[in-house]
Amino acid sequence: MAEPLFRRLALLGIGLIGSSVARIARERGDIAGEVVANARTQATRDRVRELGITDRIEADPAAAVAGADCVMLCAPVGAFAALAEAIAPHLAPGAILTDVGSTKQSVIRDVGPLVPASVHFVPAHPLAGTEYSGPDAGFTTLFRDRWCLLTPPPGTDREAVGRIADLWRRCGASVEEMEPAHHDRVLAIVSHLPHLIAFTICGTADDLEGESRRQVLQFAATGFRDFTRIAASDPVMWRDVFLNNREALLEMLARFTEDAQAMARAVRWGDGAYIEDKILRGRRIRRSLIELKQA
Amino acid sequence: MAEPLFRRLALLGIGLIGSSVARIARERGDIAGEVVANARTQATRDRVRELGITDRIEADPAAAVAGADCVMLCAPVGAFAALAEAIAPHLAPGAILTDVGSTKQSVIRDVGPLVPASVHFVPAHPLAGTEYSGPDAGFTTLFRDRWCLLTPPPGTDREAVGRIADLWRRCGASVEEMEPAHHDRVLAIVSHLPHLIAFTICGTADDLEGESRRQVLQFAATGFRDFTRIAASDPVMWRDVFLNNREALLEMLARFTEDAQAMARAVRWGDGAYIEDKILRGRRIRRSLIELKQA
Repeated sequence: MAEPLFRRLALLGIGLIGSSVARIARERGDIAGEVVANARTQATRDRVRELGITDRIEADPAAAVAGADCVMLCAPVGAFAALAEAIAPHLAPGAILTDVGSTKQSVIRDVGPLVPASVHFVPAHPLAGTEYSGPDAGFTTLFRDRWCLLTPPPGTDREAVGRIADLWRRCGASVEEMEPAHHDRVLAIVSHLPHLIAFTICGTADDLEGESRRQVLQFAATGFRDFTRIAASDPVMWRDVFLNNREALLEMLARFTEDAQAMARAVRWGDGAYIEDKILRGRRIRRSLIELKQA
Repeated sequence: MAEPLFRRLALLGIGLIGSSVARIARERGDIAGEVVANARTQATRDRVRELGITDRIEADPAAAVAGADCVMLCAPVGAFAALAEAIAPHLAPGAILTDVGSTKQSVIRDVGPLVPASVHFVPAHPLAGTEYSGPDAGFTTLFRDRWCLLTPPPGTDREAVGRIADLWRRCGASVEEMEPAHHDRVLAIVSHLPHLIAFTICGTADDLEGESRRQVLQFAATGFRDFTRIAASDPVMWRDVFLNNREALLEMLARFTEDAQAMARAVRWGDGAYIEDKILRGRRIRRSLIELKQA
């Protein structure tokens, strides 16, 4: 067995992403010599113990990070500031602090200033997820053939960046670096806006009157069913993502709304050529995705 | 072998839906003694002959319907008026004319007045589809455990309605009758609006500048990928659906847009409780769908 990348990995939060990392670390053995997790609720801690996916589970984040040479924030991004404050004095000198949050400018804003000078801070975002959450939801192939984006602030220690890249490659992901503002903009359109739309249309349908509302559920055809799958995702995680990528999300929603209004106008005035052209663009994008093996 | 429901079934259009019906009829033997199809292009006719999924394939819709006791319109709904005009004088007395269009008021408006008094008209809509189209896309399990909605105008012969219901049950679907305007309203929210949104967001992404546009494709996360799957659907079919369910679609889009703007306002002003509540509703709807076994 090769020497593990880290002696002790501390996972702060052990939901879908954290518990998948824990399971992979356990299965491979070359990621961490020991995996410690922190969970806020007694129920989650009990469940993690039952699952046996970590070496230790702590109620206190400070206790979880003590002596860890890699600390990974796996909680909803809205909890990062308080978590960072709680753990900062307890981080081991030379440790790497990383995260898995879906918004990167907010993480750098909230966590960056609290990181001790002796600790390396490497923000990261594995682009993987399902509509399930909690420690039972994780699985060892979640990151396979997916991307993990690293957004290290300027001047970050390159060796630390390299070790986090290694960790994600061992989890099965491809790794790329990206500027944080650019990350937030790209994620706003490929992930955050689609989720906002999916949550919204479920509410729109749920607001329909009486009989129609019942029949929406009964006759949910392909389109709506796919939307509800996305819409079943974790409420707190997504609330935090929306609130922490506000500017980019609102800009992309504004662009989308303009485009939807243009489509509505074409429908109202019977402009078939306009509609057909927009649908053909969707097809082309789909084809590009398939060529990029992301579909 | 039981006596087939129809002596000769004529399919006008042989794409995803038509070719699935043809394949099922061939496999079961108890739907039609003979299946004749009509296709507009030489390429499709050649391909259908190669596939061997019909007994005969005709370039002329009038020739396809001659002597058929069941005629099914399986073309995009925008083509129905011209098709009905072409076939009306050639329909056999006592025949049943039905369709598979996604909009029902428009079909009754466009086709109804052209149907000879001796012919029974039973509009229908199987709620099934994939993002693929053409005669190669069909398969025998497409309608299994899906709904087929019948929207017979008042006074329609009940035996004719019963035989079309039988046909769809033999295709694996559950059958329910619905008032046409109600059908169009329910379908607007469960299917037509989700498709309009999916086509639109693909265009919004495609309009992004340079580097972002490339990265949208590269890093398409779960949400966007699901949207592009819907967005790969047949352009002419969907153009016709939008144009033929205009009022209901525009009303649902207006409702959705109001709700999206309310969500945007909550994001801008940091109203986490509002956002979380909307996401929780999405989850509840998802759960209802799963209970109804539509998921």
